[in-house]
Amino acid sequence: MKNDKHEHLVWTEVSRERVLKTPIFTVCTIHRKSSAGKNAAFTFLECGEWANIVPLLKNEAGEDCFLMVRQFRQGGQSLTLEFPGGLVDPGETAQEAAARELREETGYEAGRISFAGEINPNPAFMGNRCSTFIAEGLRKTSAQDLDENELVDCELVPVSELEKNMGKGVYNHAIMVVAFFWYQQWKAEHGGP
Amino acid sequence: MKNDKHEHLVWTEVSRERVLKTPIFTVCTIHRKSSAGKNAAFTFLECGEWANIVPLLKNEAGEDCFLMVRQFRQGGQSLTLEFPGGLVDPGETAQEAAARELREETGYEAGRISFAGEINPNPAFMGNRCSTFIAEGLRKTSAQDLDENELVDCELVPVSELEKNMGKGVYNHAIMVVAFFWYQQWKAEHGGP
Repeated sequence: MKNDKHEHLVWTEVSRERVLKTPIFTVCTIHRKSSAGKNAAFTFLECGEWANIVPLLKNEAGEDCFLMVRQFRQGGQSLTLEFPGGLVDPGETAQEAAARELREETGYEAGRISFAGEINPNPAFMGNRCSTFIAEGLRKTSAQDLDENELVDCELVPVSELEKNMGKGVYNHAIMVVAFFWYQQWKAEHGGP
Repeated sequence: MKNDKHEHLVWTEVSRERVLKTPIFTVCTIHRKSSAGKNAAFTFLECGEWANIVPLLKNEAGEDCFLMVRQFRQGGQSLTLEFPGGLVDPGETAQEAAARELREETGYEAGRISFAGEINPNPAFMGNRCSTFIAEGLRKTSAQDLDENELVDCELVPVSELEKNMGKGVYNHAIMVVAFFWYQQWKAEHGGP
């Protein structure tokens, strides 16, 4: 740790007000003091952990694919194609949440799940992590089991399509770009599809 | 567009309440109706556009480096090393904002700035874009010019360090992983460092 050298950059929390509770996060104002004694207030979203999962399987033509979910995103106000994922529930590990989201959104279960990486979605105003897992040995075991306001279609997307278009069009979700980044590192290390 | 085929996934906005205004976004509740007539409320952050910039230059040993900024992130509550960036001001283009953030946070100006890609930071509850630019031909033209509560140190980080550690430790900001992803595509196309 080189923290001593960077001590002049550090702010310490003085107090925290919870200003607004929403279904997906609580908005806070955090009062902090800098090492030099400055006082300032910062907006912060208290939020649970997130998890997503990159499910690998072949299509009927034998091509390596991702099992992805197409949904209307209420923020982007358009359809996206994403890896399954969501909030980690209380008492769950990130891996359990990833397996559950895979099952609920697609009806598939994995023979093997591996951790690929984790990230802070936005350390400017969030403190949570999003963990990414790789799912192999998939088999369909049930129907979808969606939350009341979830409308989700499953699609097989060739790996080559994402190698070409990740980050663009329906693939424009930053967190999915990061999941794909972790997938590429996992692939380089494990030689998978 | 394959939207017709996916019409059953689409929600239409009925009304929007602005619930809380903060310095960095406005929290809204958006009421929407699904194609099948379901009604539901969703949390949304109204937020300006963002821009960041990947500044390329060599260190004294002649090694290809990124010019990065070390700062304490109020959300992650720890120090990060990131590419310069921030909010696009009213009347500015994303490229102008990127150039301005580079100048303010580092005191450098670029001989050439190229667009590398853009992303939605989180279409689950945000609708804005973050654009990434590549800066070449850097020269130091001024001192830093920071906002009142910005404490930022500049550092040269070898490209090889990020190729190895992007996404981990002080590099754990999702938006920076995406910027690096765009940089890698730009590099593959342009053959730069």
